[in-house]
Amino acid sequence: MRATIIHGPRDVRVEDRDYPTVRLPSDVVVKVTASCVCGSDLWPYRGVRPVHQPHPIGHEFIGLVESIGSAVTTLAAGDLVIAPFLVSCGNCPQCRNGVTVACEHLAHWGGTDENGLPVDGGQGEAVRVPLAESTLVKVPGITEPDDALRASLLTLSDVMATGHHAALAAKVSAGRTVVVVGDGAVGLCGVLAAKRLGSERIIAMSRHADRQAIARGFGAADIVEERGTEGVAKVRELLGGVLADSVLECVGTKESMEQALHSVRPGGALGFVGVPTGTPDVPWRYLFDTNISVGGGMAPARTYIPELLGEVLDGTINPGRVFDAVLPLEETPEAYRAMDERRAIKVLLTP
Amino acid sequence: MRATIIHGPRDVRVEDRDYPTVRLPSDVVVKVTASCVCGSDLWPYRGVRPVHQPHPIGHEFIGLVESIGSAVTTLAAGDLVIAPFLVSCGNCPQCRNGVTVACEHLAHWGGTDENGLPVDGGQGEAVRVPLAESTLVKVPGITEPDDALRASLLTLSDVMATGHHAALAAKVSAGRTVVVVGDGAVGLCGVLAAKRLGSERIIAMSRHADRQAIARGFGAADIVEERGTEGVAKVRELLGGVLADSVLECVGTKESMEQALHSVRPGGALGFVGVPTGTPDVPWRYLFDTNISVGGGMAPARTYIPELLGEVLDGTINPGRVFDAVLPLEETPEAYRAMDERRAIKVLLTP
Repeated sequence: MRATIIHGPRDVRVEDRDYPTVRLPSDVVVKVTASCVCGSDLWPYRGVRPVHQPHPIGHEFIGLVESIGSAVTTLAAGDLVIAPFLVSCGNCPQCRNGVTVACEHLAHWGGTDENGLPVDGGQGEAVRVPLAESTLVKVPGITEPDDALRASLLTLSDVMATGHHAALAAKVSAGRTVVVVGDGAVGLCGVLAAKRLGSERIIAMSRHADRQAIARGFGAADIVEERGTEGVAKVRELLGGVLADSVLECVGTKESMEQALHSVRPGGALGFVGVPTGTPDVPWRYLFDTNISVGGGMAPARTYIPELLGEVLDGTINPGRVFDAVLPLEETPEAYRAMDERRAIKVLLTP
Repeated sequence: MRATIIHGPRDVRVEDRDYPTVRLPSDVVVKVTASCVCGSDLWPYRGVRPVHQPHPIGHEFIGLVESIGSAVTTLAAGDLVIAPFLVSCGNCPQCRNGVTVACEHLAHWGGTDENGLPVDGGQGEAVRVPLAESTLVKVPGITEPDDALRASLLTLSDVMATGHHAALAAKVSAGRTVVVVGDGAVGLCGVLAAKRLGSERIIAMSRHADRQAIARGFGAADIVEERGTEGVAKVRELLGGVLADSVLECVGTKESMEQALHSVRPGGALGFVGVPTGTPDVPWRYLFDTNISVGGGMAPARTYIPELLGEVLDGTINPGRVFDAVLPLEETPEAYRAMDERRAIKVLLTP
């Protein structure tokens, strides 16, 4: 089969790779019908995270079950399934707590499973899925979604689940004011997540017209282009002299984290899902003095998918709008370039 | 009247001071019927926080309204009232959000109000209370509580409200496991707060038999005396191989904060109310990797008192048990010594 392999900075190639087979009784093999490039795929691509040896890449995909292991009973060949961005067992204490990203049997797409067997990446034609029943979520009653639905289902792998995580960590609920820092796919999904959780007033911080348009479509009432203290002042002005109840940090840099933290009102909440990169050291005393709570981290997508899936299927939410480009798998290198150069928000890959 | 004045490290004196009068229409004067010494009073006493000039001290008291300003309608002479540890207006955005400790018209007992007028300390015979209607909470239907009730009412000024704040910040709810770090009055009240919020399994970290007994009386199922990695291992063992859902940090030192943070399970919550003293900066990456949320700070006691008061009055909770000594106001210096030398958990002062 064809699959994307990352060899090093700015070097991703679509290459031949053995078609996966069921190796363990709890495996299934999924034929990928849509995958995509994640903002976090750009870290090794940009050399921010080292690539020690070439490996398959891609952690967001949906597809059709092709073959199943002997222990698999809740999935069948032909099922349309969503893969969260991590493999999880569903049965360890962390999974039972809903924190599937801390699963004791965790595996990464493009890495190896707990038995040392290779796991395919999502940016390829097919994937062996370990711990398949606990990892995959079946899409009920549908196998051939139209393009829009396919895109929205695919966001549940990561970005929509991550936006939802940020909103929950920021304690978004009806009546609360919200600021979203970051206008990438996750930030935009954060706007949508805040809207569906009942926020009546969402401010998106964005300087790009195309992203601003999506943010407004997802429910943002206002756009703030200013940054730093000017951005904070603008938020305060828009909210009638106070800062935001809930702030979603969806970038992870020093600047974005400071922007986010200083946009929270006393006693408000910061949800952060941007992987901290050079983030400032915040004294505990600052959190103490402001009564601001913080939470976040990697989203337990597997836990959230069932709740979000229903609203995707009935059309209540359409997070797939974050995809502004579609390319065939063979053009994955161009997808990386387009996202790296910010020519695209997020690129969907078709087989 | 007689009132306690702090002059410098280990120098608190009970001195003569003018009896307070109503200065502003929103003032009342309260005749103090019980006050006490707080752990935080020991910071200036120990020289940890400088005393730039002698000033009245004490921020926890209950008493009877003696005289009222012309604008006061909801309080009357003879009412028994509880004073939270800060003056707040009840009407600014922060107060309306329930974060009364960030009030835009905040004043400290023993300091000055927003008009520059002196405010008495709680460790004295009487106090001028600015913004009285929004600051004080009336105890309905009772003016002469017995000793036990008096003590419990007094804890609502600070320590019980602060324990409650820690428990809320740590997201304590029915079914969650709880660890409380710190066995001072706040930590003990944290145990009680966690119990009333429905926790079924509370572990108190304490090395003092008298405090352990109160913790058990307040609902702690287990006591852990170990510290550091041994303490964490003990928690894990007691909880069947996992760490705690909710951890209350009620000390504020580097060691206690680390003890607390490392006792939280992935995806769990840390509530911290110990004023950070020498604590390292917030480890964003650790919080990201563990999905642990943190929150805390000064408790908005004014916001919490009404809810807690009902349970104190009907005997559901008896937080006054944290007082293990009672002294007359004239012996306030001995009360400080007793707490400084850990001969007492918390000393109640009577007029």
